[in-house]
Amino acid sequence: MKFHEKMMSAAIEEAKKAEIMGEVPIGAVIVKNGIIIGRGHNNRESSESSLGHAEINAIREACLKMGSWRLTGCDIYVTIEPCPMCAGAIYQSRIRTIFYGANDFKAGACGSLFNLFEQKGLNHYCNLVPGILKEEGSVIITEFFRKKR
Amino acid sequence: MKFHEKMMSAAIEEAKKAEIMGEVPIGAVIVKNGIIIGRGHNNRESSESSLGHAEINAIREACLKMGSWRLTGCDIYVTIEPCPMCAGAIYQSRIRTIFYGANDFKAGACGSLFNLFEQKGLNHYCNLVPGILKEEGSVIITEFFRKKR
Repeated sequence: MKFHEKMMSAAIEEAKKAEIMGEVPIGAVIVKNGIIIGRGHNNRESSESSLGHAEINAIREACLKMGSWRLTGCDIYVTIEPCPMCAGAIYQSRIRTIFYGANDFKAGACGSLFNLFEQKGLNHYCNLVPGILKEEGSVIITEFFRKKR
Repeated sequence: MKFHEKMMSAAIEEAKKAEIMGEVPIGAVIVKNGIIIGRGHNNRESSESSLGHAEINAIREACLKMGSWRLTGCDIYVTIEPCPMCAGAIYQSRIRTIFYGANDFKAGACGSLFNLFEQKGLNHYCNLVPGILKEEGSVIITEFFRKKR
């Protein structure tokens, strides 16, 4: 398995942790120099916090590990396109590249609803690489909602 | 003093807490039914976290108080225009109205860099009320950077 797919598989493992908790299954990992330094899964319902998205939880852990708010040279792998809050948090963290799975046409801020990184005047721009294991990342979400109905 | 100015004064008190810690002095409070249910100040450096913005800290506290990720019927008062991450977190929290002080022409996501709430297809829209105690809120930031130089 190629490196990016391996990292995204780790993000999918995180998404499965969310699923077990009855949370919308979204996961993320943050990688520096080939090593995972932060992991997170969606826990919005169980944490009773609007901040409980996978990316935010992964960023919290990565900052703790780095001892800095600057995640320079780090990349994030997330199972679906980030929302406006998470894209903003990734931007604030100075993360280099966002690797994500499927587009989120209802909520994504990397090109679906709008593209944060097409706004002029930002003091940092992230590279965007969509489509990594997009089937695997989106099917668990689709299945989750199908079972709920 | 009118209600909105009183609430913004509480946000400015939060900003002063940040200043004492050597942090960029930005503060926020979240209000429900006339009562402050969350307070936060910028602590990005001391918390070593990119998530350490005033609004995020106030949202965390308000969700804890409400026992829910939904801050329906709540308003936020913040001493300067929110950044993309914070505007996104306010949006995710379903906060009703954002009262803020001065515009942040370098970093604001409520009309300066761009306006998150002008994007089509969001599942929630916040009202924006700029200009509340904007002199008081921005002068402490200007002074902070002047002293730093």
